[in-house]
Amino acid sequence: MRTLTPYVPGEQPTNRDVIKLNTNENPYGPSPSALEAIRAEATDSLRLYPDPNATTLKSALAERHAITPDQVFVGNGSDEVLAHIFQALLKHDDPVLFPDIAYSFYPVYCGLYDIRYATVPLDGAFGIHLDDYNRPNGGIIFSNPNAPTGCGLKLEAIETLLERNANSVVVIDEAYVAFGGETAVALIERFANLLIVQTLSKSHGLAGLRVGFAFGHPTLIEALERVKNSFNSYPLDRLAIAGAVAALQDSDHFDETRQRIIATRDRLIGELERLDFEVLPSQANFLFVTHPRCDAATIAQALRDRSIFVRHFDQARISDYLRITVGTDDEIDALLDALRAILV
Amino acid sequence: MRTLTPYVPGEQPTNRDVIKLNTNENPYGPSPSALEAIRAEATDSLRLYPDPNATTLKSALAERHAITPDQVFVGNGSDEVLAHIFQALLKHDDPVLFPDIAYSFYPVYCGLYDIRYATVPLDGAFGIHLDDYNRPNGGIIFSNPNAPTGCGLKLEAIETLLERNANSVVVIDEAYVAFGGETAVALIERFANLLIVQTLSKSHGLAGLRVGFAFGHPTLIEALERVKNSFNSYPLDRLAIAGAVAALQDSDHFDETRQRIIATRDRLIGELERLDFEVLPSQANFLFVTHPRCDAATIAQALRDRSIFVRHFDQARISDYLRITVGTDDEIDALLDALRAILV
Repeated sequence: MRTLTPYVPGEQPTNRDVIKLNTNENPYGPSPSALEAIRAEATDSLRLYPDPNATTLKSALAERHAITPDQVFVGNGSDEVLAHIFQALLKHDDPVLFPDIAYSFYPVYCGLYDIRYATVPLDGAFGIHLDDYNRPNGGIIFSNPNAPTGCGLKLEAIETLLERNANSVVVIDEAYVAFGGETAVALIERFANLLIVQTLSKSHGLAGLRVGFAFGHPTLIEALERVKNSFNSYPLDRLAIAGAVAALQDSDHFDETRQRIIATRDRLIGELERLDFEVLPSQANFLFVTHPRCDAATIAQALRDRSIFVRHFDQARISDYLRITVGTDDEIDALLDALRAILV
Repeated sequence: MRTLTPYVPGEQPTNRDVIKLNTNENPYGPSPSALEAIRAEATDSLRLYPDPNATTLKSALAERHAITPDQVFVGNGSDEVLAHIFQALLKHDDPVLFPDIAYSFYPVYCGLYDIRYATVPLDGAFGIHLDDYNRPNGGIIFSNPNAPTGCGLKLEAIETLLERNANSVVVIDEAYVAFGGETAVALIERFANLLIVQTLSKSHGLAGLRVGFAFGHPTLIEALERVKNSFNSYPLDRLAIAGAVAALQDSDHFDETRQRIIATRDRLIGELERLDFEVLPSQANFLFVTHPRCDAATIAQALRDRSIFVRHFDQARISDYLRITVGTDDEIDALLDALRAILV
């Protein structure tokens, strides 16, 4: 445990005047009915433990995705869900495989649970090459759309991967799927080795509430429940359960806000390209960009000096890139003004 | 993982008409200012991640106990805090020691993290015998007051234990300390091997919010932070942080409700003894009782038939006992009426 290198999340500045485009939060916030449900739950009933099975939330998720509650697992943010997945399902003699450019929490979980892993290089365009996963493995995990690149993988490719790896658990982390990606949830009926992870953090503007979930075959879900119930019987508090259920039921708010983010993203791509940025194709609520003449770390620092936070990863292959969250139109305009000043 | 036997929490009936004396919840609920703080936090700001370090909560806890924030660890309920403690600090070649009658989650954590353990029998009066812990160990953990017995251990005994086990981490789980026990928090300044665990669940009527914490030497806290940050950067959501801070600041509500519970407990002891129950001395918000003529499981079922839930553990040495949470005076009167009817 003394050698663990923990995950380092993006900075959470306490100064509210900052334009915060560094941790992929949704600029439009949660459904008003979710806030109302939370306030309604803030009563004397907080003296009672929550439902350890979060039955109402599992039902709401099952209904939304036309699956059954025994295909649903819920946790205190998708990070907790992922942690349980690594511990319960991905520890084997063969290494778990994930892309070299991936969510940087994956190797941290492997360190925490002493799990063997191997990274598989993305191709030159940061795409996943299916053939590179044709090797003995103890599981496969990646995000779709991928983070921090934003690039998506087609469902047909995922089907092929599932067919080729029938004896491995394949985990698709769909934290960003709401913004143009294709969800693989429908495939869980056909593939008992598929596990989908999602979260309300980005899609429903509820990063501050900590609600994540997984969908898969009941056998996989049961394995996760066994670990969860050996760790913390009540990972979701009463307020989180109530707020999440109401957020899921407000599909109008969800649709409207994600369409706004997609529209702003498309506008931002055009404007950044006009400033000579190269912009990776994005299905997420962020862009991954590089500039041919100006160093990424320098741009990040210059933006920060103007109270605009974006994310720079000091990491092989991507140190020339910046990850920029799609904010409101006003925030994006301020970003573009700052970039124009910096790049002159 | 397939052989894990998870912890089984007390039942959470969905029927609100039940008199619920089975999971040691506080009958008086949280501070009104905690509820107000939660409602005030249920805003658009939920779109942002929480502070991963819960700085305001650590400061409030440090202030309350006259310690420093680097001596404080916080988590999503004391169950999560305990899980991290087992993983980070209690896995060694020598077994971790805990009483044979103890919080039944301890052996579950050992199963989850593949930790060796040995149980140490309590004496005939369910007391802890210090000499029984004079053996090589990878840590010692017990609750004080103990659960499910309610019996407390004196601070002098804990000091002796800490002196004798200078090379082991000694964890005192003070989930129930608010109701008449002696906290060992002051000892963390003198003993770098001491870790105290507490929770708002019982003491502050916030079981539904999931907030627990640990106090100890910064070196121990740092080890817990490393595991926590390799598991989930943001275990406490924004609502939990805000509610917990406000709850801790309302010491009047805390003092008044715990005094009421202590008074009701003392009255309940007398009434139960009048019904020929043997009642263990309790420093907790529950009583552990046995009846010389009537089987405990039978009483529990008869109470349940009257919509009164108490806890019976089908476990060696204590299967003749019932654990009864101290509820409101009205709830206790209903319990006593039911017992009089059952015991005729």
